[in-house]
Amino acid sequence: MASRSPFAPLSHDEIESAVKILKASQSPAASFQFKMVTLHEPAKTEVLAFLAASDDTRPEIDRRAYMTYYLRGTSIFFEVVVNITQGKVDRHDRLGPNLHGAADVAEMEAAEKAVLSEPSVRAALKDIGLPEDAPLVGEPFPYGADGVDDDDRMWQFYLYTRDPNNLDANHYAQPLPVSPVFRAMDFKVVRIDHLPLGFDTAVDPKAPYEVPPPNEYLPECQPNLRKDVKPLRVLQPEGTSFTIKEDGDTTGKFIEWQKWSLYVGFNQQEGVVLYNIKYDGRDLFYRVALSEMNIPYADPRAPYHRKSAFDLADGGAGLLANNLRLGCDCLGSIYYMNGLLADDSGSPMEMPNVVCIHEQDAGIGWKHTNFRTGNACVVRSRELVLQTILTVGNYEYILAFIFNQAAELSYEVRATGILSTQPIGRDVTVDWGTVVNPGVLAAHHQHVFSLRVDPAIDGHTNRVAYDEAYALPRSDMNKFGTGYVAKETLVETSGGLDLDWSKNRVFKIQNASHRNPVNKKPVAYKIQLPPYQFILADEESLNFKRCEFADHSMYVTSYRDGELYACGRFTNQSRGGYGVRTMAARKDDVVDKDIVVWVNFGINHIPRIEDFPVMPCETIRVNFKPVNFFVKNPALDVPPSTQEVNKSALVTGQDGPAAACCS
Amino acid sequence: MASRSPFAPLSHDEIESAVKILKASQSPAASFQFKMVTLHEPAKTEVLAFLAASDDTRPEIDRRAYMTYYLRGTSIFFEVVVNITQGKVDRHDRLGPNLHGAADVAEMEAAEKAVLSEPSVRAALKDIGLPEDAPLVGEPFPYGADGVDDDDRMWQFYLYTRDPNNLDANHYAQPLPVSPVFRAMDFKVVRIDHLPLGFDTAVDPKAPYEVPPPNEYLPECQPNLRKDVKPLRVLQPEGTSFTIKEDGDTTGKFIEWQKWSLYVGFNQQEGVVLYNIKYDGRDLFYRVALSEMNIPYADPRAPYHRKSAFDLADGGAGLLANNLRLGCDCLGSIYYMNGLLADDSGSPMEMPNVVCIHEQDAGIGWKHTNFRTGNACVVRSRELVLQTILTVGNYEYILAFIFNQAAELSYEVRATGILSTQPIGRDVTVDWGTVVNPGVLAAHHQHVFSLRVDPAIDGHTNRVAYDEAYALPRSDMNKFGTGYVAKETLVETSGGLDLDWSKNRVFKIQNASHRNPVNKKPVAYKIQLPPYQFILADEESLNFKRCEFADHSMYVTSYRDGELYACGRFTNQSRGGYGVRTMAARKDDVVDKDIVVWVNFGINHIPRIEDFPVMPCETIRVNFKPVNFFVKNPALDVPPSTQEVNKSALVTGQDGPAAACCS
Repeated sequence: MASRSPFAPLSHDEIESAVKILKASQSPAASFQFKMVTLHEPAKTEVLAFLAASDDTRPEIDRRAYMTYYLRGTSIFFEVVVNITQGKVDRHDRLGPNLHGAADVAEMEAAEKAVLSEPSVRAALKDIGLPEDAPLVGEPFPYGADGVDDDDRMWQFYLYTRDPNNLDANHYAQPLPVSPVFRAMDFKVVRIDHLPLGFDTAVDPKAPYEVPPPNEYLPECQPNLRKDVKPLRVLQPEGTSFTIKEDGDTTGKFIEWQKWSLYVGFNQQEGVVLYNIKYDGRDLFYRVALSEMNIPYADPRAPYHRKSAFDLADGGAGLLANNLRLGCDCLGSIYYMNGLLADDSGSPMEMPNVVCIHEQDAGIGWKHTNFRTGNACVVRSRELVLQTILTVGNYEYILAFIFNQAAELSYEVRATGILSTQPIGRDVTVDWGTVVNPGVLAAHHQHVFSLRVDPAIDGHTNRVAYDEAYALPRSDMNKFGTGYVAKETLVETSGGLDLDWSKNRVFKIQNASHRNPVNKKPVAYKIQLPPYQFILADEESLNFKRCEFADHSMYVTSYRDGELYACGRFTNQSRGGYGVRTMAARKDDVVDKDIVVWVNFGINHIPRIEDFPVMPCETIRVNFKPVNFFVKNPALDVPPSTQEVNKSALVTGQDGPAAACCS
Repeated sequence: MASRSPFAPLSHDEIESAVKILKASQSPAASFQFKMVTLHEPAKTEVLAFLAASDDTRPEIDRRAYMTYYLRGTSIFFEVVVNITQGKVDRHDRLGPNLHGAADVAEMEAAEKAVLSEPSVRAALKDIGLPEDAPLVGEPFPYGADGVDDDDRMWQFYLYTRDPNNLDANHYAQPLPVSPVFRAMDFKVVRIDHLPLGFDTAVDPKAPYEVPPPNEYLPECQPNLRKDVKPLRVLQPEGTSFTIKEDGDTTGKFIEWQKWSLYVGFNQQEGVVLYNIKYDGRDLFYRVALSEMNIPYADPRAPYHRKSAFDLADGGAGLLANNLRLGCDCLGSIYYMNGLLADDSGSPMEMPNVVCIHEQDAGIGWKHTNFRTGNACVVRSRELVLQTILTVGNYEYILAFIFNQAAELSYEVRATGILSTQPIGRDVTVDWGTVVNPGVLAAHHQHVFSLRVDPAIDGHTNRVAYDEAYALPRSDMNKFGTGYVAKETLVETSGGLDLDWSKNRVFKIQNASHRNPVNKKPVAYKIQLPPYQFILADEESLNFKRCEFADHSMYVTSYRDGELYACGRFTNQSRGGYGVRTMAARKDDVVDKDIVVWVNFGINHIPRIEDFPVMPCETIRVNFKPVNFFVKNPALDVPPSTQEVNKSALVTGQDGPAAACCS
């Protein structure tokens, strides 16, 4: 199907074909435990030729699948590229050591069952006085890495109990101090760790354990729900302003909205990926996606020193995406997009309603009142939202790409869900966590994110520069000491970059060969980026080495096909060496080249009790805004905000003879 | 009327009484040019006694007016406090030197007329070749201060031309290089400044001037407006969740919403003021209001070295507030609140629809899905918005207080409107501004804001502390270098405070005598505050001395009645010495005292051409969130988000058999 976008996720048939081609090339006796079957994105040079060509001269681009699999029951792990179009295997390589696959759902479910029925685990729980019939929940956490006998793929199982009468009881409120370590290859509990309950490393596997009290979040468990929240509805009586076109038998979508055009894909590791983003026909971004998120924990003691989750490569933003039908996540007129992944047998796996697409009102877009005449001009800001929600065990992340009518693109992360908890003695206070329930500690942790932005600002030859503002020294020109200037510095080689608020440092991605016709400055997009505390694990630690991005606010690298993940494709018990710090260490020339920008941000989460038993959303946002890219405000042609269209309602019982807005 | 809140703005009758009482105490020949007639807020000790008492034992608090006035046609300026209840003048003091009143509307209109018809001004415009009949706009800018012959109250008039056929043409696109200086006392043009057009201080009053081309923002002037923005409406079919009670014959309002209760006032200098804010009956804030905003400009050359506007004390956030009827500023079910100020004759002046109050949906409030059962719990976040919009000549500021159901309070500023412009030669480039139209420079400038927060976290004895996160050194406890802790530092004396993102420094206002029952930490509210570049004018400059807050991210001072303004009550051509830096220099003890926190934030606006001819909103937000104030998430009792209530609509033409959200 020549018209299929080169970015299209693998179709149902393509997944089946790829698996068939792979299996045909291997021994018939092989038992495959697939970890990933996904699109192998074509080389950028091929894609650009495709996009530049007219419909009838479009080159065919071979469709390829990238796959990883274990020989089931072993630690033998392979990475494969299959050319589906040609029906052959391009590459079939053994991976490792210290390169492991992520968890898969079937494996996790079986592992939990095995752990909870393991006699040594049962015995350990009996030793601390837990009743035989207490419900048990075993939550597998990526084992992490410390370089000590950690070559095998393992999980650290954290155990909890809960209300026996409620399958949805909040088990995180009732952690247990017995923590089995489970090896994936042979499905064995290899040891039992005991969690420290005091302020040091001391553990006592025989001490009677006082189970913490429950602390429920379910509405049914609340004494009184608020009765005074009046409904608020969003209506679009003439439909939405966006148009969405399907891409054949794939799950990819072409979207057009308010001069924006883009292609949306969805895959197992990154979740939502945006491609070929243009505004009013001008290139802006070739590809944008979250490239990793890491949550390292602050308790220095075993086993918590290994507690550091990489939710994309250890888990999968696509795999963990919520089915948005099951809750009321989106308000207004909503388009749902499905995804298509593969399960551990290599069979296509439907992921319904993983992305919701809708408009929202974002308040005033711009306004000016001429005070002499009293004439006010105001437009409202309408946004397009592409939203997905991940559930990673305890935590939720609401991830949204947001477009507006001023040619601005934002990425917003909201953290919610439940703190990861550990047991603690009743009168113990430690500086690495907050007690959120009697006997329950929520350790401090960092949430760090890296958004990979492959820019194409008016074309693929870009550079990164930053502006800083400096006070002028006193002089004849600056007699009164009030003057200041903005100065630009070019980023010449790949590497890490930091904010500096004392200088108002602002990074821009520019195209130096395209100048603004009015002020001659290079067309650019600037990045508005909140500061964050970099990863606190020290530089010799594996936590630091594995999380290659969180020591800077940004990284710039030169483009290379396949370099998509800030911490590498495989983070599970990794050693580092495949992520953005390693790419940047090449010290490539990044001036007027095909470059990639990795935009980093995060939260150092020092828990408060209001974050329990479920936390109110904590929001971070990154904005990309045009700078001298247009010749004036691109939202100037948005029609004025009028009462006739908006139909606001006047709330009665108010002052004087006020009339409705704009009547 | 004993039931009137002590915070109630002066009523119509009270304004008239106060003026009458003052006039009766002065010579009958005196001609009064009033600059302010406003509530003189009672002493906090009196108010707290009032609030603590039950209805029948409530002490009467005398109603007082604070007034300033000039003897018209002179620079003789007085500050007055009148006790309206007792019918007497408490205080009548001469002000100055270097303490001036703000602009008033009548004065500005008359001044513009005088300047534009002044023969020397006309002659100067003829000298540069401007046609006799060219329309002229004269925009008065506060003169500022440089210590050079600047004791008289003056304005710097910036002149523009515009399309003769359009009263709403954007004159900022067409600045002129002739800038008259006008003295208020005797209504005279005292000199004409000529604006430099090159990259140095050279001026040429006789050089022919090429008027820049027009650049219009009016929708009627756009070639094509977008036709594809489909309507989006917000409905509240059962009404709003807030209740608003009037306060007798004053404009004050009592508001209750989602466990919040507060009193809202409105005055000339600060605009919206919130008083006695509680959540679920617990004290949180005694008084919150914007206390000043300053916009200093970067061009070092005369006259721009004096270009620094203090929009509250030079202008008045109340006086400059838009009548929200005249545009479509608010979407949904809107309550409008009026204000009542006084004009230059001391007569009550109605300010209709200066505050709009409404709810809005803010996306998901919290969510968790139990991946084992698939049960998702989600609530939406509903916010209450109190919004006002200021027009300060060219610029607009949209100021909003936002409350949510998780007991969080936010303050949001959106800057929009039109850049302040100056003429520049056609091929000139300077580092202190951006060319936004041929021949038009928008100089760099800072927008700095100070929000005054008088906290009452569970009572009036509070302290400020900050948390920082530190990596632990390697040790037996921290073998792998991953551990970190949060440490708290107490702020002991009044002074300036700064952020430090390398330490994740977070400020909290605590009540040390109230401990969280679960984790024993002091109840607190934390402040989430974006960083900003401090004022760049050097410390010896008057710009720095006048703007007493913008050298730190926060100030803490001990409470004193009347200390309400971060730069003092009078900023017009001031010298400094009455603002927060001066208050803090007392080095008062601020531990477990009645304290005040001044929260500072801002933008260093390096203009881009997309900010012209009107800029898309640039948003800054400050949040106040509970920390260990409650025992769990305060929004746990918000009812779940359901399709039955929300009635989202499914957009058709999508994948497979997806059903509507939550059906």
